[in-house]
This record gives sequence, structure tokens and C-alpha cells, in this order.
Amino acid sequence: MSSPLRKDVTIIAGRANPQLADEIGAILGIPLCDIRISTFPNSETHVQVEESLRGKDVFIIQPTCPPVNDNLMELMIMVDACRRASARQVNAIVPYFGYGRQDHKSTGREPITAKLVADILTVAGANRVVAVDLHSAPIQGFFNIPMDHLTAVPLLAQSFKKPKFKDAVIVSPDLGGTKLAEKYTDVLHLPMAVMSKRRRGIGGREVEFFVSMGEVKGKTVIIVDDEITSGSTTKLVDILLESGAKEVHMAVTHPVLATSAVDRVRGSALKQLVVTNTIDVPEGKRLDGKIRVVSIAPLLAKVIKNIHENTSVSKIFAEQHINFPV
Amino acid sequence: MSSPLRKDVTIIAGRANPQLADEIGAILGIPLCDIRISTFPNSETHVQVEESLRGKDVFIIQPTCPPVNDNLMELMIMVDACRRASARQVNAIVPYFGYGRQDHKSTGREPITAKLVADILTVAGANRVVAVDLHSAPIQGFFNIPMDHLTAVPLLAQSFKKPKFKDAVIVSPDLGGTKLAEKYTDVLHLPMAVMSKRRRGIGGREVEFFVSMGEVKGKTVIIVDDEITSGSTTKLVDILLESGAKEVHMAVTHPVLATSAVDRVRGSALKQLVVTNTIDVPEGKRLDGKIRVVSIAPLLAKVIKNIHENTSVSKIFAEQHINFPV
Amino acid sequence: MSSPLRKDVTIIAGRANPQLADEIGAILGIPLCDIRISTFPNSETHVQVEESLRGKDVFIIQPTCPPVNDNLMELMIMVDACRRASARQVNAIVPYFGYGRQDHKSTGREPITAKLVADILTVAGANRVVAVDLHSAPIQGFFNIPMDHLTAVPLLAQSFKKPKFKDAVIVSPDLGGTKLAEKYTDVLHLPMAVMSKRRRGIGGREVEFFVSMGEVKGKTVIIVDDEITSGSTTKLVDILLESGAKEVHMAVTHPVLATSAVDRVRGSALKQLVVTNTIDVPEGKRLDGKIRVVSIAPLLAKVIKNIHENTSVSKIFAEQHINFPV
Amino acid sequence: MSSPLRKDVTIIAGRANPQLADEIGAILGIPLCDIRISTFPNSETHVQVEESLRGKDVFIIQPTCPPVNDNLMELMIMVDACRRASARQVNAIVPYFGYGRQDHKSTGREPITAKLVADILTVAGANRVVAVDLHSAPIQGFFNIPMDHLTAVPLLAQSFKKPKFKDAVIVSPDLGGTKLAEKYTDVLHLPMAVMSKRRRGIGGREVEFFVSMGEVKGKTVIIVDDEITSGSTTKLVDILLESGAKEVHMAVTHPVLATSAVDRVRGSALKQLVVTNTIDVPEGKRLDGKIRVVSIAPLLAKVIKNIHENTSVSKIFAEQHINFPV
Amino acid sequence: MSSPLRKDVTIIAGRANPQLADEIGAILGIPLCDIRISTFPNSETHVQVEESLRGKDVFIIQPTCPPVNDNLMELMIMVDACRRASARQVNAIVPYFGYGRQDHKSTGREPITAKLVADILTVAGANRVVAVDLHSAPIQGFFNIPMDHLTAVPLLAQSFKKPKFKDAVIVSPDLGGTKLAEKYTDVLHLPMAVMSKRRRGIGGREVEFFVSMGEVKGKTVIIVDDEITSGSTTKLVDILLESGAKEVHMAVTHPVLATSAVDRVRGSALKQLVVTNTIDVPEGKRLDGKIRVVSIAPLLAKVIKNIHENTSVSKIFAEQHINFPV
Amino acid sequence: MSSPLRKDVTIIAGRANPQLADEIGAILGIPLCDIRISTFPNSETHVQVEESLRGKDVFIIQPTCPPVNDNLMELMIMVDACRRASARQVNAIVPYFGYGRQDHKSTGREPITAKLVADILTVAGANRVVAVDLHSAPIQGFFNIPMDHLTAVPLLAQSFKKPKFKDAVIVSPDLGGTKLAEKYTDVLHLPMAVMSKRRRGIGGREVEFFVSMGEVKGKTVIIVDDEITSGSTTKLVDILLESGAKEVHMAVTHPVLATSAVDRVRGSALKQLVVTNTIDVPEGKRLDGKIRVVSIAPLLAKVIKNIHENTSVSKIFAEQHINFPV
Repeated sequence: MSSPLRKDVTIIAGRANPQLADEIGAILGIPLCDIRISTFPNSETHVQVEESLRGKDVFIIQPTCPPVNDNLMELMIMVDACRRASARQVNAIVPYFGYGRQDHKSTGREPITAKLVADILTVAGANRVVAVDLHSAPIQGFFNIPMDHLTAVPLLAQSFKKPKFKDAVIVSPDLGGTKLAEKYTDVLHLPMAVMSKRRRGIGGREVEFFVSMGEVKGKTVIIVDDEITSGSTTKLVDILLESGAKEVHMAVTHPVLATSAVDRVRGSALKQLVVTNTIDVPEGKRLDGKIRVVSIAPLLAKVIKNIHENTSVSKIFAEQHINFPV
Repeated sequence: MSSPLRKDVTIIAGRANPQLADEIGAILGIPLCDIRISTFPNSETHVQVEESLRGKDVFIIQPTCPPVNDNLMELMIMVDACRRASARQVNAIVPYFGYGRQDHKSTGREPITAKLVADILTVAGANRVVAVDLHSAPIQGFFNIPMDHLTAVPLLAQSFKKPKFKDAVIVSPDLGGTKLAEKYTDVLHLPMAVMSKRRRGIGGREVEFFVSMGEVKGKTVIIVDDEITSGSTTKLVDILLESGAKEVHMAVTHPVLATSAVDRVRGSALKQLVVTNTIDVPEGKRLDGKIRVVSIAPLLAKVIKNIHENTSVSKIFAEQHINFPV
Repeated sequence: MSSPLRKDVTIIAGRANPQLADEIGAILGIPLCDIRISTFPNSETHVQVEESLRGKDVFIIQPTCPPVNDNLMELMIMVDACRRASARQVNAIVPYFGYGRQDHKSTGREPITAKLVADILTVAGANRVVAVDLHSAPIQGFFNIPMDHLTAVPLLAQSFKKPKFKDAVIVSPDLGGTKLAEKYTDVLHLPMAVMSKRRRGIGGREVEFFVSMGEVKGKTVIIVDDEITSGSTTKLVDILLESGAKEVHMAVTHPVLATSAVDRVRGSALKQLVVTNTIDVPEGKRLDGKIRVVSIAPLLAKVIKNIHENTSVSKIFAEQHINFPV
Repeated sequence: MSSPLRKDVTIIAGRANPQLADEIGAILGIPLCDIRISTFPNSETHVQVEESLRGKDVFIIQPTCPPVNDNLMELMIMVDACRRASARQVNAIVPYFGYGRQDHKSTGREPITAKLVADILTVAGANRVVAVDLHSAPIQGFFNIPMDHLTAVPLLAQSFKKPKFKDAVIVSPDLGGTKLAEKYTDVLHLPMAVMSKRRRGIGGREVEFFVSMGEVKGKTVIIVDDEITSGSTTKLVDILLESGAKEVHMAVTHPVLATSAVDRVRGSALKQLVVTNTIDVPEGKRLDGKIRVVSIAPLLAKVIKNIHENTSVSKIFAEQHINFPV
Repeated sequence: MSSPLRKDVTIIAGRANPQLADEIGAILGIPLCDIRISTFPNSETHVQVEESLRGKDVFIIQPTCPPVNDNLMELMIMVDACRRASARQVNAIVPYFGYGRQDHKSTGREPITAKLVADILTVAGANRVVAVDLHSAPIQGFFNIPMDHLTAVPLLAQSFKKPKFKDAVIVSPDLGGTKLAEKYTDVLHLPMAVMSKRRRGIGGREVEFFVSMGEVKGKTVIIVDDEITSGSTTKLVDILLESGAKEVHMAVTHPVLATSAVDRVRGSALKQLVVTNTIDVPEGKRLDGKIRVVSIAPLLAKVIKNIHENTSVSKIFAEQHINFPV
Repeated sequence: MSSPLRKDVTIIAGRANPQLADEIGAILGIPLCDIRISTFPNSETHVQVEESLRGKDVFIIQPTCPPVNDNLMELMIMVDACRRASARQVNAIVPYFGYGRQDHKSTGREPITAKLVADILTVAGANRVVAVDLHSAPIQGFFNIPMDHLTAVPLLAQSFKKPKFKDAVIVSPDLGGTKLAEKYTDVLHLPMAVMSKRRRGIGGREVEFFVSMGEVKGKTVIIVDDEITSGSTTKLVDILLESGAKEVHMAVTHPVLATSAVDRVRGSALKQLVVTNTIDVPEGKRLDGKIRVVSIAPLLAKVIKNIHENTSVSKIFAEQHINFPV
């Protein structure tokens, strides 16, 4: 990233992941915007930008990870402040797009909260959104403002480009995850298996998971998913081992990692969990390396640079595929 | 459907599927609205409504099947005419929602035409949209106006509730179709298999299909899909038979059936293709019953009645599941 | 409230103040709508309405009190669910309107979050908003949808219509509060005093409050305010007593009452704090009656009834003034 | 056109008139944007832009000539793709604006499709529209985005600036066309005549045309119109000759030229039909020169250049008038 | 008009033409809404509605005649007040639609104020607009809300259905007026003539009018126009008489009648000017009957009734044509 | 203001205060845009811009002072013309923002006209608004486009930074004015007093003003207000003198000065009225210096320059405070 950015660009770090913003700022060689964000005693979020933003191309770094409502409101309030401060363009960099799983009505009288989020972000004044590994691709269409949808799959897959994983199998925890799993099979040239659940016992109250399609016997398994929250997916590890899997790894883009999840990962037979830092994973939660964090910052820095300089973003991914050394 | 509809409701038949509109009108016991639709020599569509619509609850029946652009424009022009004629509510009944497959960007610089269609339908003045088996569920979220998403799966599955299909397997032609296939497995309590394609030969120019997950050997197979257009899916029939399948059936909601498709179905070893009439299949195309058409009209009539009378639409489906005689 | 409400109305209780919703429902004689609201492990709010809302006039009771971001998002998600479920009209009853204090830019590059809230509530699909004692009257204008702005002043003033308060003085804690104080002086026919602060000491770091205008010596004082949050206003009690006030009471519409506030009220020389239940004050926080709660439910019930039946809301207040027995 | 265009501009050719786009590109000295447009078997239009458009000033050349619905949808889909690809500005160059004749309700319950087209083009993301000789001037007002309305009259009139036409008369085929005819009379300093129709015979089923106002006897006549579609206007030629006209010419901006039209022109006593290439007229349809095509490309190229460089467009026409050598 | 209007309808009279509102109210048998409209010393318009409007179908009678800006702002402020007062539907009855002549750009850098007016009326909250004889039909398309476009031509033409006018000729003062003139020729079965102007003298500073098309010699002439403002059209009277016309009458829908106009009419050889009362013409201006006023109130009352009762408005005109006794 | 403005900026003077526009243009060293604004005989405003605006940053100077409706419509029509002429950015400089006092509903069924004005200005196409001393700060929030709110208080206060005013007191004519008065007390370090009114006599028809809070006895008094219109505030002068004030001065930002006001000022015991020229005060109205006008032009020129050059506007005020020599 040789050429320096023009001076009319600035990066704003929300409180959701300032570590990531710092890293991006360092890569791009620009200091973060001076901003004060605080929570009032009545729980309201307050934002005060301390530098002029007139005519600036602003990039706000704010994943809407838990607490999702606070982080989302904070994002919108920052956007509102930037717009009213006459920023030229307000780019919302939302590496983890919360509420993505609520992207359709599964029964009557449900909201479609992912669409609501897209609408309110737009009305708040965002001019562009950048997100990584959305829960489903059509969420792109929830926006009419330009949206750059990035993927961390090539980044995470890198960890599995070793002789050891030559005969591995990619496992999707359910049918909804097969689209993501397919990206891994494309990049790693590995086969796929899919798990399903069935209900058993009196009244179907017991839920039983099993490998419904594909073969795992004798193989090293890589479970892939877009987010890990409660860590309940770790239950699949034992089932896979019982089904004959040699060992089980896991690759997940967004480490939501609610309190229970770290304990479950620690207690499970999982060999390794590879995640990105779209959401910050503090050192203490990494379980001495059992949870390995690959930084998304270089990718986001490159994307920000290209957006600002009006050069292609999709090219970044095209290049990555070409260079793929399997 | 005992209670008669109030007199402030009317049904408008576009030119895409007047047969379906007739059937619905007959079930509901209301005559169709008097309307003249024509094509001018310069290819423009012209619409003239011949009855007063003031204060009426209008239901326009118009699948956006091929020619999709003509049918879509005709739909929007009818909506515009209704709105300007002071209709109280304009409901677009779009049994087949064209452009549904273009619901996300698969590479850079693609449109998301399904969202564009949602936006322009809304700006034309539609107050509600009803569709059947959308290509993907998040398309519901492309709309902010109320959208009722119906499914024809229980209707089509009915044909397979026979002893003969007791040990059948549901086959999805690709990973993208597994969500729909899952609906069939739920309703019919059958297992699923998935097909994939791989590229072979010099430069990967040959495409080869195969059963990538699940088991078809010795089984009766039901391929399920949302739409059949060119009939290229019929190629899978031989592959399935070569893989040991006993016989192959197919259930598809939307019979787009381009010219080539009927020939392919005729020439294939397919036992039977069951479709709905979201798109009209004239008698001559039904191949003496090899293509069997199940009417969606009773479902749409019931939905229109419930919408107009403000009773639950989701209840219709809840009831169907309960009554399911497997 | 003799005439029963028509059956096409329903009340939805959010999680911010279900006690208030219950009370309103009881007064109006209608059961609350069956709804499930939960928080997912990844902190997302999820809403599922369990009854048909088609064609219904829906009233959602949800003050946006702390945690304001959660309650606001929950409100919008409920609104989205109602709209998509084809409710005829979605009325957001927001007794306490959070973020009301952020209604203008006080320096450069601040957001105007109260306007942002109005915009996103509208885009979520609310058709009307009802609020009580907004921080400033122009917030009404932040909405283009109809907004009914109610006041609790007559209700709270009722407590001070006793001989004891015949010579009392209404005290506004600052200039911004004089508009509210004026409502009390109008209703109670009492004079007003205003407090101000000045900075002292090295670098002006000490803040000193004093009675800048009006007379409190020898008088019973009633401090009035729209909300009490941290309880810092209790500091004024001693200053007023030092300035010669006989005793000090307080009337506040919205009991935000952060943890510290109850302690401060308990520890202060305040005689009595009268509040409404726009925000719930559990029994344990009421300090054996030192904090007295007057219910706003009868007023809100009457307003909901009049809105639903299309009779005047402003008449309710006109009537109150006429009946005022001073 | 000496100064070269800056490199942040690109021209996209839709499939409606690629010949015109080529000509414009050649004049401006810039290659056309690499784009793939195709029609899927289910008749859907698909667009894939093959070059980065970030920050580019994009000019899409697409008259909405027949098949109007296909060309219009293709235009909107291209606009959508450009917007989502972060183009800086998307300019829709629509030399022929289809549906222009449907610009008002002539009876109750008609659509105003020209307005619908303006609305959906805008919602698709167009930032500017350029059109030539709209059917009526107020269509400009259907847009709120900037619209540049050009006229081909000076260009077409050029053909009639010869001694031979010194005493000619401009004929408008009906009252609606007199505004356009007036432009010709202004430029050519010739008088005008107007034709009308009356109904005759049993039930008024026979339509008879006649010169209702103005004088054609002994004169060379130039019929002028905005578009020629079915060629029915050629019927006027005989009537004019019968009324004493010496010979009849015709000048039309938009050669829609449905199949029948070319035959009618060939068979008529018309001396010459002069048109522009807003719609392409292939060599085979030009009847050995009886239909003469004047290229609009130089005008459009100049307009595109001025738009991109922010210099006046109206000046182009002011200059033309000044230089007018009559 | 036998059946009485339902009680949820009200008529509001702005200050532009209260006489017309009174007349309409009397015909419909409903009292006008109690409203106070005043002008503040700083020239601001203030509106206070004195009756509850909740759920009412409101019809505001306000032509935007001179002073057009005051009347237009007053109309929008009334609309805003109605919307915020929870009216069910706000219908703007604008018999004379000011700024209608500014319906397109005639040169570069002009506004299209008629569109601006349509946009701001809509954003103010109008749900429907009713207007009479718009300057051009496409103005209907400037609105997306329903618009009922009425014509006073049958009403005004009634005055000329006498033997005396059997051989009269309809004269349009210019080409732009021929569309309106055509309506008269249709209704009265008379021929048309058109006047034009040419510039003469040094520098073309003298403007000369003449009969450019059609024949007036020996005929009674009826000049028709949509509005009479400065009365400059009276200049045509002498020219027509000099051209051999027997006598000259005039029919105009909107009597804007600036001060000079009444004098010019009085001083001219015009036999009679027939107008409607879309704009009030006080007795003193009627010149002892030389200006004859035909009331539009019965038509507007019927239209309001049909709108409110959801019966056809276009039928009113269809009926009139049928009953036409020529 | 050393650095010259770039050439892509232009200033347009409306007819409300061309003197101010001239002054600003002179300070910035740029000639005003060539524009023709006229009033048609039918009272319509017509605007014709005579220079190309393509890509220009346009600043329109137009206070919406009386006649407020004419000036507001003229402003919007100019904005519409600029937008349609492809201006890059249309900045509405509205030094006096008319209708500001109508910023909330004070009783039921009132409009909120200040919000209506914000909405229609935005829909007309304004991209930014600049105003001075709005009647209330939340009006900023009525806009979603960037709004720069300036204050003339430091400018006006300058006149009172003399030994003579060392012990003066700032008087607010009512409670609503205390926020503005506070700005003066901050800048001048003086105490405040507030006046109120009470009703007396039979039926409370007599209104009596009095000093309700604060002390004026023996002091020089400075009444401060945002606008002076009818001059009724001059009545307070005698009351203040009767209450013991030594002498009375007045500082007002906006000199609306209806006809009566100048007479009242002349006749009153007021020593001096200091105003700005947001609204022009012709020499003849200045009463030989009793009304002193301080020019706001240098401030507006600086703000325009900073907006155009994307440098901070709030900094201008920060600087002023720092330099404040009290």
C-alpha cells in the first residue's frame, strides 16, 4: 500500500471494536478522528466529533456485535453527526452485521429486522455499507445505497492449506450453511458433508443431530459457520467423532462468543477454532491459542483505500483467487 | 367459502394468466373487472379500466412469467391506473415472481434486479404483494409493504402421498435448492439427496453432474425445484438412473416451460412432472398427462378472501399442516 | 368509559413497562395481545406476534426508558412486525420519549438524536406517536405522522392543591425548565423562581448553584422537572433550604431513577417526590412513600379510546382545565 | 471537440441502439465500457459490467424504442448495476423516450405511464436523463432529477434549407402536433397548416382527414411529426395532393418504423422522409434513400461532453440558432 | 342530490374563495368547518382549526389565485394542520391551479414551478387534488396522489347553445390554446380558427396578431381561453373585427381579472365574457352583466359527494355529454 | 479573507435583501449571478437564471422576511431552477427564517409551519440551509440536510461592551426568550431579569406586564429579542422605567419592523435599538441613528467561504469567544 491516502479521508472508531479501527488506521498511516462517545446516566449514547468533517470521506468502523442494540444505535448516531457536520460521504464499515439472521419471516407476524436495520441505517444518512460474510447474500439487496460485501473465507481457509488437511471434509452444521460451506470447498477443493437434526423421545422434545449427507468416517473434519455465539455448535464435535471423524476443527468468521461459548470450546474435543477479529477477542479468551484469531484489518484497510480512491474492490478478491497456492 | 365477499372488492386479470384469474373469480363468485389491455403498434402497453374503482379493494392477478418484461410493465401500469382511479387498496397477486433468481450480487458490478422489481412495484403504487414459492425467502424483505409469501409445496406433495413413494428420496438439483427440498422432506417425511456439478476435460469445459450427498440407489426419486424453464434439469434423470435410482419423478411450482423444455420432458425417462398453474400450461403442452397440473386457484382464492376480510393468512398454512394425512 | 371498544383494536405490551400496559388494558377492558419477545444469546431482540393483526388498530405501549437503545429497538421491531402483519394502523404509545434532550446541536458536530429517533420510528412503519411531557415542544415537529403530545402536569399538580401549598413557589432547576414550570404556575396559580449555576475556584472547576431569579425565602418550594435520572437535582434541596425555603417538594413526570438517584432522594432533605408511572417504579424503590407514584394509565386509556374512536384528544385537556378545583 | 475527456467518464451501450453508442464513442474518442447483456431462457434480462465503475461518470445510451418494455427494463437494470457498482453519476441518455404519448389521462381510469416511467427510472438510481423531442414538454416536469431536453428540429430542418422549399408549408397532422410544427416554422420561416379528422358514414365508423386550417394549394408540403410508427400518417399524403399540394415531404425525429410503416412509405407518393437515428434504421429499410437518416450522434456527443465538463447545454442550441443560415 | 352525506365529512374554506365554499356547503347541506385563519403582523399566515377532525374526510376549498403565494401557502398550512389533527383524508379542492403555465422549461435554467407546487402540496400531506381546466393535461402526471381533473367547458359552452351561434367559429388566441378550443368545437360542433403573432418594425419590437389559420370573415366569433388575467387578449377583438368577424364573444374558465383587465373588457368591443367562479368575481366587477358568471359550485359539490361516497367522478362528465342538447 | 474563492462558486440574490447579497459579494470579491426575477400580472413569481450553473456551488441569499410567503416561494423557485440547471450544490442562505415561531402545536389542530417550511425547502432541492438566531434551537432538527445555525449575539453584544453598561441587566420580554438572553449574559457577564404578563380587569381583558424575576431598579437595562415586528415590545420600556430602570436599550437580531414598529420606537423612551441587517433597514427608517444597524455580511461571507472550502464553521464562533475583550 505504497501511495498515501489523500488528506480528505478520516476514520472514526466506534466503541464496538476500537482495536480493529486502530489496526486499520496504522496500516493506512492515518490517525483516527478525534471523537468523544459516552453513555449518559439515563443510558443514552452521546457523540461529539472533535474535528471538522466538512467535505471529508468518513469511514466509521463499527461491527454491530453484542450489545447489538447499543452498537447499532451508536453507529446511527455517529452517522447522523457526520451527515449534519457536512461530511462528503459517510461510509459505515460494519464487519459484523447484527440481526442478519432475521432476514425473512419464517412464520407469520415476524419482523424482518435485517431489513429494518438496512432502512434505518440509510435514513440515518449512511452513503455506503461494507460488511463481511453476511448471513445471507440477499441482505445486500436490502440496501439501495452501494454495499460492498466482503468474505473472510480465503483468509480463514489459509489455515487449512496444509498437507494435514489434504483429505479433510468441510461440514456445514445445517442446510442453511451449505452456501458458505461451498465457498470453502471451492477454495480448498475438499468435499462437503451436512448435518441435520431430528426430534425424538416423547413429544419430540429431544433433539438429535446426525450427519445427514456426505461422509466423515476416517476424515479430518472442518466445521464452518458464519458466527459462533453460544457455542452450542460444539455439541456437534462429539457426534462427528462418534461418526468416525479423526479430528475436528472449526472456522468461523464472526466470534460473537457469548460467555458460555468460551467455556464450551474449552471443554470440547475441538482441536482448534479459527476466527477473524471482526469482533474483538481479548487475549484472555483465546484459550492459549485454541482459539486462533486471523486479522481482517489488512483486507478492510485495502478495501477502504480502494473505495476512497475509486479503484475496484471486487478486484481484490479476484486477485486472491488467482494467487491461491493450494 | 360460504360467506359472500363484500361488494367493494374486484379482481383484475392481466394478460399473463387470465385462465387463473377466471378460476379464482369463479371460486369467489365475483365477476372480473371490465378492463381493456392492448399493445400499441409502437409496442407500448395500454390499459383502460372500464369500471369505477373508487374505494375498491383491488386484486390484480399477474404472474411475471415470460415475457417477463412485458408482464411486469403491464402489472405496474395496471397498478398505476388503479391508484390514480382512487382504489382503496391495490393488491398485486404475483403467483410467479420473475427476476427472483437475481436476488444478490454473485460477482462485482451485477444488479440486484429482484430488489429493483420490488422498488418499482412499490413506487408504482402497489399496497401489498402476494407471491408463491419465491426463489429465496429474503426477497420478502425487499418489500416494505406487506407481503404474503405462500407455498405450493403441500399442494404438490399431495401427489406423492401414496404407498409407492413410501421409500422415495427427495433430490435437490443443487445446494441452492436444499431449502425448498427441506420443505418436501418435512411434509413427506422422506430423506434428501443433493446433486452437484464438477468441471472436467481440457479447460474444464465439460460439466458433469453427480449425486454429491445422500443416497439414491434402489430408490424412487422426486426431484424438486421452484421453476422449470429450459428443461435442462431433465439431464439429471439419466444420471440418477445410472446412479441406481428406480424411477424419477419431478415436482416444480412454476412451469415456465420454454419451448425446449416440453421437448426435453417428452424425450426424457422422467415418469411424471407435477406443476401448478401459477403460469398457464395449455392442454397441448401437457404431453397426455406426463405433465400434471395442480391448480393453485383455490389457495389464492382463499388468501384473497382472508386478506379482504382481515382474517389470518398464515392460519391457512397452519391448518393444512394439521390436516396432513400421511 | 362506558361504551366498549370495537373488537378491531389491540394493545401490545413491550418489555419496557408491561405493568402500565396491564393497567391500561384493564381500564379499557381488553386483553393484551399475545406476543413473545425474547433476547437471543447474541443479544438480538426477537419478536413474534401470536395473534392475527390483519386490519387491526394496534397500540404498542413502550416508553423508551433505560436501557433506551434496547427499548427503542424493541419498539421498532414490534412496529415492523405489525406493519408486515397487515395491521391497519400502528400507534406507538411512548409515554417517556428517550433521547428527547438531544433535540438540537449545542456545539458543532453533534447529532440531533431526537430527530434521528423520529425518523427511524417513522421508517419502521409507525403511523402515530403519543408521548407525555416531551423535553421540548418542537420535538412534535420532528414527526410528520400525527403526534399527540400529552402532559402529566394537571395530574401531578393535583398533589399540591392543598392549603399547605397556598403560598408555595414553583422552582425551575434551570432556564431550560421554565416552560414546564410555567405550566405548573398556570395550573396552581403560584409564582416561579429559577436556579442557575456559576463556576468558581481555580479554572472554574467548582460549580455553584443559586437562586438567580425569584424569591424562595420563607416559602414552601416545589421543584418541577420533566425527568429525574441521576438524582443530582437533589443537591438543590440544601441550597434552597439555605436560601430560606421552609421545605422542599418535587414533582417530576418521568422517574428514570438510575440506581444512584433513589439513594440520593433517600439521603436528601426532600419532603416528597411525586412522579408518574410512565416508567415503572417498583415498590421497593418508593422509599415507604417518600416517592409517590400517580398513575398515568387512566389518561393514556382515555387517549387510546379517543384515538380509536376518532374523538378529540385535545378536548380531554380542555375538560381538565375547566374542572380544575383550586 | 478538441480537448480530450477526462478519464473518469465511460459510455455504456445498451442493446437498443449500439450503433448510435459506437458513433458517439468514436466522436468523443473513448472506447465503450465492457459490458455483457443477455437474455436468460426464462426471458429475464441479465447485465454484467466487466469494468470498474467506481467514481465514474457513466453515460448509458438506450432509447426506449420497441420492444419498449424490454429496452426500458434493460435500461433500469443497467442503472441499478451502475449505482451498486458505486458509479459517481449515472446519466441515462434516452434519445427516444417511449411511453411519452401516455402523458395524461384522456378519460377516467387511465394510467399516466410516462410519469410511471419517470418515477421508476429515478428509483432505479438514474441521476440525470437526456431525451430528444419529447412528445410533450411537461414530461420534463415528471422528473425531479436534472433533465436535458434536446431537439432535433434544427438538424432535420437543415434538409429543407434549399431554394426548392422557399414557399413550402409546414403541415401538422393534428392539433397535438402544432407545438412541434411551430418549431419548424420558427427555424424555416414558413407558414403552417393543420389537418383534422371527422367521422362519417353509418355510426361514424369512417374517419376522414382534411386540411382544417391553413393553405396547401400549389405548395410543397413538409409534414412534421415526432415519431412515425405504423406509417398511417402516409395516408395524409394523398389527401394533401388531392387538396392541391405540389409534392409532399416528411420530417420525423424518431423512426420507430414498425414493419408496416416501411411498406407504406414505399407505396406512398411521399417524396422523401427525413429522420434521425435516435432509433437505428438499418440500410435495408432505407428504401434506396427515400428514407434519409441524419445522425444525432454529433449533438449527443457534444451534450455528453458538456455535461461531463459542466459547461452549458442550452448554449449549444443558442449557438445553433445564431449560426442558422436561412 | 337526495342522499345526505355521512357525518364524517367536513368542508374547510380558505380565504381565497369563501363564497364558493359557502355555495358548495349549501348545496351539500353541511355547515363549513369552524376555522380561524389570520395574518400575523410579520405577514405569516396562521391557521387554527376549531373542531375535531379525527377520522374525518376533509375537503379544503382553495383556488391558488392571486395573491398566489399567499393562497398556496395558506392551502399547505391548512393541509398540515389537518394531517397533524389526524384527518382520515385531506382533499385539496383547487379549482384554479396557480403556476400551471410554468409547466415546462421553455429555455435553459428555468424552474418548473407547477411541478414544484405538486411536490410541496404532496409533502404537506394532501391525499388528493381536484382541479378545473389545468393549463395543460400532463400537470395531472406531476402528482402521484389521485388527481381529479374536471372541465368547465360543458358548463361555459351552454351559453352558446343558441340559434345565434349556429355558424359561429371558436378562436384560440394561440397554438397552445388549441387543445382547449378543440373541447369547445367537440361540444358545440363548430369550426376553429387560430391566431398567431409576428414581430415587425425595427428590431422586431412591434408585435402584430393575425388569424393564421381558419376563417372568421362574416362569422360570430367565440374566443376561448383557460384564464384571463391582464385582459391583453381583448386586443384580439379589434383584430378579429377588422378581419371581418361579425361580433366577438369570449369564454374563459378562470377569471383572474387583474385590475387592468376589467377596464380593458369594459373598453373593448367584446359583446360578452362568460366565466366561472373558480375565482370570485364581485358584483362590482361584472360590468352590469358584460361579464357573466356561471357557477362551478354544483359541479364541485357533486364531485365532492362522489369522492366521499366512492362513486365514479368521470361518470359525471360522461352523463353530461349524453345529455347534451345541441 | 486573503485566498480567492475558486471559480465554481456563485451567489444568487433573491429580491428579499439584495443589499445584503451585494455586500457579501463585495467582501468575497465575486460578482453576483445574472438572474431575472419578476412577478407576472397573475401574481406568479418567475425566475430565469441567465448564467450556466452546471457543477457550480450556488449560494442563494434570501431571508424569508415579509412578505414571507412571496419570499419563501421565490426562494423555493430559485432552488428548483438551480437544481434543474444541474448545480452541484444549492445552499439556501436564509438569514431570517420566517415562520420560526410556529415551531410546535400550542393547542390542538394547529399546524407546525416551521417544519412544513423545512420539508418543502428540502423537497424543492436545497442541499444546505444557513440561518441566524432561529426562534428555537430544535428547528435545526426539522432539517435532515446539513444546517448551519449562526448567532448574531456576539456581533450585537459588541455595542454594549462599554463602561456604561458595566452594571446593566439583560431583560428577556418573556420566559420563551430566556435562552437567547442567556447567550447575552454569557457574553457580557451580566445578570438577567424576566418579564411576564398577567390578565386583570373584568373578564381578564386587560393585560399587564411586570418584572416577574430579577432586579432592574437603578440599572441600565438591555432588552434582547430575536425579532421586532409590530414594536409592541416598546410598551415594556415605560414599565421598566416605572420599575426603576435608569435607561432602556434594546438588541434584536431581526428587524422585521412592520410599519407601526418604527413609529412606536420613535415615540418610546427607548435610548437605542441595535439590529442586524438580516432584513434590510433603509436609511429613512433608522430614525437618525436611534435604530443602529450592524452588518451581518462579514459573518455570512466568512461562513460561505468556509462552507465552500470545507473548513470549519463552528471554529468561527469558537474564535470569536476567545477573542472576546470584555
